[in-house]
Amino acid sequence: MERYHELLEGGALAVDVRAEPLFKARPTPGAVNVPWARIQEGDHDLPKDRPLVLLCEVGQMSRVAALYLEADGYGPVYVLEGGLRALDGGGA
Amino acid sequence: MERYHELLEGGALAVDVRAEPLFKARPTPGAVNVPWARIQEGDHDLPKDRPLVLLCEVGQMSRVAALYLEADGYGPVYVLEGGLRALDGGGA
Repeated sequence: MERYHELLEGGALAVDVRAEPLFKARPTPGAVNVPWARIQEGDHDLPKDRPLVLLCEVGQMSRVAALYLEADGYGPVYVLEGGLRALDGGGA
Repeated sequence: MERYHELLEGGALAVDVRAEPLFKARPTPGAVNVPWARIQEGDHDLPKDRPLVLLCEVGQMSRVAALYLEADGYGPVYVLEGGLRALDGGGA
């Protein structure tokens, strides 16, 4: 439970799970890009000792990636509800 | 987009959307308790100028609450994937 606090104290790592071309076209400042397909294959070196915040276009692929990550012992994993689009359009 | 950074810099507010008795039985340190039914009715005074992190038992009610909050101009809103149970069992 205590590690959930790390998110609130700014210890989380932002992970943009969009495909690389999308990330390159509109990079998310402060986030690392690990396309969700690579998360699905476990082909990444994300840390297991920090909360992860997953970002994608509308919040769907982040949830898929989050399930894989949690099953592999990563986390806590947070998903930006509504994805980056919610940031631009809504509560940006 | 810039407000998403506030989450990473520890500016988010944790909101536990479980029913009050559940929250009282097992409080989430550092979180305010706003049961999701009150979020649905807009019967709360959550801030509109801070990212919100929603917590619940398994991550379902947080998503419902997140949709209401984003529709009402709150956010960015993050949901703990798998809820508090993922913290205890998995990546706690």
